[in-house]
Amino acid sequence: MVEENKIYHHTVNIYYDDTDFSGVVYHANYLKYFEHAREHAIGQAELVRMWDEEGLGFVVYKVEMQFAEGAVFGDALDIRSYCVKEGPFRLNWFHEVWRPGGTKTAVTGVVQLVCINRERRLVPIPDFKP
Amino acid sequence: MVEENKIYHHTVNIYYDDTDFSGVVYHANYLKYFEHAREHAIGQAELVRMWDEEGLGFVVYKVEMQFAEGAVFGDALDIRSYCVKEGPFRLNWFHEVWRPGGTKTAVTGVVQLVCINRERRLVPIPDFKP
Amino acid sequence: MVEENKIYHHTVNIYYDDTDFSGVVYHANYLKYFEHAREHAIGQAELVRMWDEEGLGFVVYKVEMQFAEGAVFGDALDIRSYCVKEGPFRLNWFHEVWRPGGTKTAVTGVVQLVCINRERRLVPIPDFKP
Amino acid sequence: MVEENKIYHHTVNIYYDDTDFSGVVYHANYLKYFEHAREHAIGQAELVRMWDEEGLGFVVYKVEMQFAEGAVFGDALDIRSYCVKEGPFRLNWFHEVWRPGGTKTAVTGVVQLVCINRERRLVPIPDFKP
Repeated sequence: MVEENKIYHHTVNIYYDDTDFSGVVYHANYLKYFEHAREHAIGQAELVRMWDEEGLGFVVYKVEMQFAEGAVFGDALDIRSYCVKEGPFRLNWFHEVWRPGGTKTAVTGVVQLVCINRERRLVPIPDFKP
Repeated sequence: MVEENKIYHHTVNIYYDDTDFSGVVYHANYLKYFEHAREHAIGQAELVRMWDEEGLGFVVYKVEMQFAEGAVFGDALDIRSYCVKEGPFRLNWFHEVWRPGGTKTAVTGVVQLVCINRERRLVPIPDFKP
Repeated sequence: MVEENKIYHHTVNIYYDDTDFSGVVYHANYLKYFEHAREHAIGQAELVRMWDEEGLGFVVYKVEMQFAEGAVFGDALDIRSYCVKEGPFRLNWFHEVWRPGGTKTAVTGVVQLVCINRERRLVPIPDFKP
Repeated sequence: MVEENKIYHHTVNIYYDDTDFSGVVYHANYLKYFEHAREHAIGQAELVRMWDEEGLGFVVYKVEMQFAEGAVFGDALDIRSYCVKEGPFRLNWFHEVWRPGGTKTAVTGVVQLVCINRERRLVPIPDFKP
């Protein structure tokens, strides 16, 4: 499982289908990149195991995003992510998007996850490695 | 259920996220529009009922598409679709994309569907209304 | 152009590609539905005209979303939207997602837009009809 | 530029948003993976340079796909691609999707590209390295 406060890096290549005719990445797509970054931080195999063996899954409960600069076709974005628990039931992920050679963040986001079981009932966030 | 050889019309509005930075609709999206057109022809409620009550679902087996002209932001596309059974197991859908005021088809496609049950085994295409 | 505080309704049909394997609509997609709702409120022809004649376009600057319930395949969602200016440069859109027969909002969002010109410089939000 | 007949490998991780509620990857998404594979074979920097310096871009003209098996969440797909010119104006890409540990191709596709200039006129496919 993930470690709190550790910064995870994930690279996202921007393809044609990430952009729209305004020339930059369509705003909703950053939520996908954030999720891909979280999946790599936690590990897709671990997410599959959690679901298959324990019946547990993460669900997005709240989102905040702010946009300073648009990414363009050909960018290899660095998604920098870390997480902090908020009480037993909430896991806050902080995401930053850095363009190649960028001197400030292009996009920032906070995504709050909760954990549910097979009956879609809220359960505590699973334990982290100490 | 659908009628063979009947032409079904479905309108698709082109939004920002349908386009890419080249200015026209991203090519893969037409497969979505074709599927939306089929879902409206068959009826989403009927698709849900087929799955819930009979455990039957359609799966795409083959696709062919040809592109003559790109649709742009703001277009209200007319998707014209009809279907023909090919033997008991295959259902061929023929799709055309017409742009507003267009004098020829912008995109054409043929999508071959098969029908599977809950065990993902091939079953005959369900009967059509006579 | 849009009227402040007026509630605009926009219907979104949920197709296969809107969902993910968890069975409900993928969270990022609601940002698309919100944008489609805004495009219909403003009018796509007006958006094209603003860009072509005046070189003006809207850009998403900030987003907040909260998720209470997931929409599923076959839902016809009612997206209820209204907007309020915040000073001369910001336009806040408030969006609610209502599922068919729903007794409370499934998803809520606030999207703050700014307006830019061809040089990507901030300009005041264009005047509304009185 | 790419070499004819050389097999290029590209890895695609399957995330939540790639799947739909049937549990497997939504069929249209394979066209995206094929394009991402081509972009990496040609090089995104080369595609940007071609467009900026020479005003040349590739456009999809025809597509054929066949589906044998669905990919699932957590798969790391191997997309195997090679290209062959067909006369001076057409470039055919042959794509195969291999699932981890797969013994046969899950999806196959042929995508025919043409090359256009800034006036959207057809031009010969640019020369390959000998």
